[in-house]
Amino acid sequence: MIPIHPRIDRLQPYVAGIRPEEGTAAIKLNQNESPYPASPKVAETFGRLRPELLLREYPDSGCLRIREALSALHGIPVSMLLCGNGSSELITLLYKSFLCDGDTVAIPDPTFGLYATVAEMAGIRVDIVPTGEDFRIDTMKLLESDPQAVIIANPNAPTGLCLQAAQIERLLQSYRGLVVVDEAYVDFAPEGTSVLGLVDRYDNLLVLRTFSKAYALSGSRIGFAAGNERLIQAMGKGRETFSVNAVAQLAAEAALSDQDYMRTTVERIAMTRQQFCESLERTGWNVLPSVTNFVLASPPVGGRTAKELYERLLSEHIYVRYFDTPRLADKLRISIGTDVEMQVVLDSLARAD
Amino acid sequence: MIPIHPRIDRLQPYVAGIRPEEGTAAIKLNQNESPYPASPKVAETFGRLRPELLLREYPDSGCLRIREALSALHGIPVSMLLCGNGSSELITLLYKSFLCDGDTVAIPDPTFGLYATVAEMAGIRVDIVPTGEDFRIDTMKLLESDPQAVIIANPNAPTGLCLQAAQIERLLQSYRGLVVVDEAYVDFAPEGTSVLGLVDRYDNLLVLRTFSKAYALSGSRIGFAAGNERLIQAMGKGRETFSVNAVAQLAAEAALSDQDYMRTTVERIAMTRQQFCESLERTGWNVLPSVTNFVLASPPVGGRTAKELYERLLSEHIYVRYFDTPRLADKLRISIGTDVEMQVVLDSLARAD
Repeated sequence: MIPIHPRIDRLQPYVAGIRPEEGTAAIKLNQNESPYPASPKVAETFGRLRPELLLREYPDSGCLRIREALSALHGIPVSMLLCGNGSSELITLLYKSFLCDGDTVAIPDPTFGLYATVAEMAGIRVDIVPTGEDFRIDTMKLLESDPQAVIIANPNAPTGLCLQAAQIERLLQSYRGLVVVDEAYVDFAPEGTSVLGLVDRYDNLLVLRTFSKAYALSGSRIGFAAGNERLIQAMGKGRETFSVNAVAQLAAEAALSDQDYMRTTVERIAMTRQQFCESLERTGWNVLPSVTNFVLASPPVGGRTAKELYERLLSEHIYVRYFDTPRLADKLRISIGTDVEMQVVLDSLARAD
Repeated sequence: MIPIHPRIDRLQPYVAGIRPEEGTAAIKLNQNESPYPASPKVAETFGRLRPELLLREYPDSGCLRIREALSALHGIPVSMLLCGNGSSELITLLYKSFLCDGDTVAIPDPTFGLYATVAEMAGIRVDIVPTGEDFRIDTMKLLESDPQAVIIANPNAPTGLCLQAAQIERLLQSYRGLVVVDEAYVDFAPEGTSVLGLVDRYDNLLVLRTFSKAYALSGSRIGFAAGNERLIQAMGKGRETFSVNAVAQLAAEAALSDQDYMRTTVERIAMTRQQFCESLERTGWNVLPSVTNFVLASPPVGGRTAKELYERLLSEHIYVRYFDTPRLADKLRISIGTDVEMQVVLDSLARAD
C-alpha cells in the first residue's frame, strides 16, 4: 500500500461553509460572499471578449495586466505584486517560501481557519494566541512564543473587528519576523485600516488581498500579495505557473476598473449591516461591532441556543455559519445579504422564539 | 531580512512557452494548445448561465458535477476522481500526499519539465532516467534507483511518443511504489494507450488528465486525477479548497458533454499533423512519430540549426518551442495548429534555407 504522508493523514481539512443543493431556493449567508454581482463592466467585457474563446489559450502566468491595474490604483510597483488563486494559494505559498519545517507561526484565536490547516500541512508549528475577552487582537501577545511569522487578518474573521494601521505598524517597528496582514475584508473597513501603503517601508511585511469579497468575484479565484520585491520574487518562483485562470484575470481587471461600483456596493452592504445589527440588538442579541460584510452575534441568553438557531435557519434553507469551538459555540456568523434577505433572517429568528 | 526557504531560493522555476505581446498577430505553436475553440456547447452554456453571475459565489469545492460526468463517461466511481487546477496542481499534490522528504521519484528524460521542478521544491529527489536512442521509455529502467514513485507522461512530451497500456501494466505487476501516468495527450493517441481502465485493479496507480489539450480549455485550468479511493481521498485532504474556478467547472462540463466535437477536432489535428510531418520529411527533417498535437523534429544536418530556425520563426511572430538541453538542442517542438498556420511555418522554414 502506498504510504500517505503523515501530515496529510492526520490532517483535519479546512471546512468551508456548505452549499445549498443545486436548484434549491436558498439564502446563502455563510461564506461572506457579496449579495450583489460584480460590476456591470465584467458582463460588458465578457460580451466583448467571449470567455469561451479566451479559454483556448493558457492564461498569462504573470497576470501582468491586473498587476499593472493594481499598481496604478494602489501606487505600488508591479514588481511588488503577485497574483494567486485566491488568497488561499498565497497563504500556502508564503509558508513554503519563508518558513522551514519546525518554524512557528503565531495567529490569533479565533481567526480564519485556513492559516492553521495549511501550516500543519507544511510542517509548521502554530502558536494559537487567544484574543481578549472582547475578541480584540493584542499584536504584542503574538510575539510571546518568538515565532518566525505572524498572521493577522485585518479586519479579522469571524469577529468582524479591526485593528488600525498604526497598531500594526507598532508591531512592525519591534518585530523582525514575517508579518502577514490578510486584508480580505479591508474594503469594508474605515479609512486608515489598511497597511498596503507600508509595504515599501517594511521589508518583512506581506499584505494579502482578494477579489472574493468587495469585488464580488468569489467564483473567480483571484487574490494578490503585496510586499518587498525579494519576498514577492521568492513566492513567484514557488507558485503554480498558471494558477489564475484566463476568465478570472479578465473579470478582475474589469472589476478593478470600476471603483465607483465597488464603493457603492460596499456602502449598501454597510447600511444593510447597520440595520440588521440594530434589529438583532433590539431583540436581545449581543453583536460584535463589525466593520465587514458579516456579523458575529450571540442570541439572548435563556432563549434558543446558537446551534438550535443555526439548525432552524438551515431547515428553512437559510445558510449561516456555526463554529462548534469553545469561544464561538454561542454565536452565529451571518454574512450580510440584501435588505430583503436579512429581513427573512430576522423573521425566521422571531418565529423561533 | 526574512530568510527564503533554501529549496525556493535555489529553484530554477519551470519555464513555460513565451506568449506573444498583446495585440501582436502571431502564430502560437509553443504550448500545445488547440487551434480550435472548445465545443460550441461551452459558448451556449455561457450564454445561458452568465459567467459574471456565476462568479459571485464560491465554486463547488468538490467539482461534483464534472466528476459525475467523468464517472459516466469513463466508468469510474466519483470517489475515485479528483479535480484540480490543471494537472499541475495535481502533480504538486501527489508529491505532498505520498512522498516524504528525501524520497525519490524516477522520471524519464526528456519529459515534461514540471515533474522535476515541483519535486525539487518539495524536497524530493529526482532520478532522471535517459530514454533510449530512439527516445522510447524503458519502464523497467525507471525502477533501477529503487524509487518510491515513477511518473510517466503517456504520450510523452516533448517527444510525442507513447507506450501501450500493456507495457505500463507490466510495470504495475512488478512494482509496488506509486505509478503516476500523466495522460494529458492521450485523446490524440491510438486506442489502447490509456490505463484509466486499470485504476480499479492497481491501488498504486494514479492517472492524470487535463482539459487543456483535446478539450481546448487551457485557459480554464482544470484537470483530474483518477485512482484508488484511498489515494484520491488523501489528495483531496491536501488540496486548495477552491482551486477550480466556477467558470472552468461549467466549461469543462459543457466540453465533456460534446464528445463528438472533441473527436472531430482531434481527427482534424491528426490529419494536419500527418501532412505537416510529411512536408517536413520531404525537406530532409527528421521527425519523431508523434501521436499527439505536437511534433519534435530536427532540421536537416548541415543547414540552419534548430536554434537559428527558432529565432527566425520568432522574428516572424511564429512561436515554437526550443529546449536548450543536450538531447533536444538540435530539435524544435512544434504544436499542430490549423492547416493554414502550418503552411505558414513551412513557408517560413523554406525561406530560411
